[in-house]
Amino acid sequence: MSPKEQRLAELLAPVAGDMEGMRSTLARELSSESAAVSDMTDHIARFRGKQLRGALVLLAGEAAGRTTDEHADLAAIVELIHLATLVHDDVLDGAEVRRRVACVNQRWDNQVAVLLGDFLYARAFALSTTLSSRLASRVLARTTQVICAGEIDQAARRYDFEMGQARYEAIASAKTGALYAAACELGECYPAGRECGESELARFGQENGLAFQIIDDCLDLEGDAEVVGKSVGNDVEDGKVTLPVLFTYERADEATRAAIRDAYTQPGIESRVARLREVCDLAPGIAHSMARAKELALSARARLAPYPSSAARAALEAFSDFVLERRW
Amino acid sequence: MSPKEQRLAELLAPVAGDMEGMRSTLARELSSESAAVSDMTDHIARFRGKQLRGALVLLAGEAAGRTTDEHADLAAIVELIHLATLVHDDVLDGAEVRRRVACVNQRWDNQVAVLLGDFLYARAFALSTTLSSRLASRVLARTTQVICAGEIDQAARRYDFEMGQARYEAIASAKTGALYAAACELGECYPAGRECGESELARFGQENGLAFQIIDDCLDLEGDAEVVGKSVGNDVEDGKVTLPVLFTYERADEATRAAIRDAYTQPGIESRVARLREVCDLAPGIAHSMARAKELALSARARLAPYPSSAARAALEAFSDFVLERRW
Repeated sequence: MSPKEQRLAELLAPVAGDMEGMRSTLARELSSESAAVSDMTDHIARFRGKQLRGALVLLAGEAAGRTTDEHADLAAIVELIHLATLVHDDVLDGAEVRRRVACVNQRWDNQVAVLLGDFLYARAFALSTTLSSRLASRVLARTTQVICAGEIDQAARRYDFEMGQARYEAIASAKTGALYAAACELGECYPAGRECGESELARFGQENGLAFQIIDDCLDLEGDAEVVGKSVGNDVEDGKVTLPVLFTYERADEATRAAIRDAYTQPGIESRVARLREVCDLAPGIAHSMARAKELALSARARLAPYPSSAARAALEAFSDFVLERRW
Repeated sequence: MSPKEQRLAELLAPVAGDMEGMRSTLARELSSESAAVSDMTDHIARFRGKQLRGALVLLAGEAAGRTTDEHADLAAIVELIHLATLVHDDVLDGAEVRRRVACVNQRWDNQVAVLLGDFLYARAFALSTTLSSRLASRVLARTTQVICAGEIDQAARRYDFEMGQARYEAIASAKTGALYAAACELGECYPAGRECGESELARFGQENGLAFQIIDDCLDLEGDAEVVGKSVGNDVEDGKVTLPVLFTYERADEATRAAIRDAYTQPGIESRVARLREVCDLAPGIAHSMARAKELALSARARLAPYPSSAARAALEAFSDFVLERRW
């Protein structure tokens, strides 16, 4: 275990038992009678990642004093939806390596990645329909729509160097913040029959999710694939204009702007992110973005004040710090 | 209106009012606040097709004497799921023309087609969570898993000329029969809290769906793109070995078998389906397949006997005939 993993394990100690429950539900849900299906789900079980979204369900439940027998399943459902989005993102991005395991679309192909993602979404919804309350089905169907609409907006804004920070944040909030928020909302409110999307804990999730996405976008520009554990430079390759680039472009002279556009679009460039780094100084844009992420994480942390002091609340506070220090 | 469309309209007369209700729900569900999303949903609304699955929900409900105020929404949900599978199939097949309207993935790209399909699935599940009974969410989450697993099995069996008719039918039943069966099950049983998947009406749907798929596979081999309204020859292009080919291959000598395999796999063949037609006589395989489809449709029809005589039951009987005569 690396020092980082050690710290994460400590952070999640208040919900360690339910994390185990979540993992066994996940293992069961990833199995299938079909040999062709289970061959693939066995494969993706290996890039399960840090399971931060599932952890948020459990920590939010504990912090609000409302954990039920079904919270471990709720956490597993949120992780299944996240896995489905990852599998479909691999189709979208043409990403070559994710978490050092060959992507589904490299090992099989795009066709199968689409089907596997669909299968995981369906599994998640099916599991949600077995729970005693319909809240999970409702929140997650709503959230999945928001995520997809955010990704569609993002696709429509490729190569748009003038969309502005507000539009960028709206897209990042939809595609990443929404599932963090849903995790916290479900953890806090389940099994209430009514959605409670406007709670402070849900906002905590939303802001941390946006911070996480901003940092992810910075890492894609400046990170080292070995350290980050997945290939970098994908955003530039795919025409995604992220916050550090928007900031840089906005302040650049016309010649630099043209060079930035060329780095994104000119045919035959081997590494677009390397070219981008050559033609402009991204450091101020990265610094601006990291400052914004920090602001969001601090705002998120402050939202925990109304909840009674507990090990889970302390873990959520540490969670915000953990997101900020993220270098993996 | 063509004579065919005229006949379909007559066939659906017993549920004409609810078909209108279904269409207005669909129109509402295909709208979105996001300009990027509604730009695409406007587009796909144009290839809405015959909406046979939605019609089955309504006819099954009428035939079982159980139509509720929510049946039009149920029908819309089933159609949304069907639309989602069509959009993802376009990614999978690389199909060029569907129902004479450019496919989503031609007009935009694969990325966006995946996202749009995800969005439609999520919309369908979200709508199902607003209904008074959870039956629709349960049946449709289960059915979507079956469809995906069937498509994954199909992908794993590409270029498998020896899978046998039973395996072919299992795949076709999963990918097409399951949604027809779910449409009938929901129409008949909603709002009962318990699934009733083994009813005669559900089997009626299953068998008609399988018959429909077999005929679809025949049309892809021998149909005329102009008449069928979508591009043909996709199955051979994608390595899908369908019933007429399985039958032909099984009875062919070794030289013909090698020629069939080459038609599927040799690089640089402009039209694989044209080559396949050159190297073997598909007519007996088509005849065998159409006979099997007819057998299934007759079996399906016989399952209606226990239901009381009504305009809806007569329409379901005509539905089986309509599937068999299908040339569009």
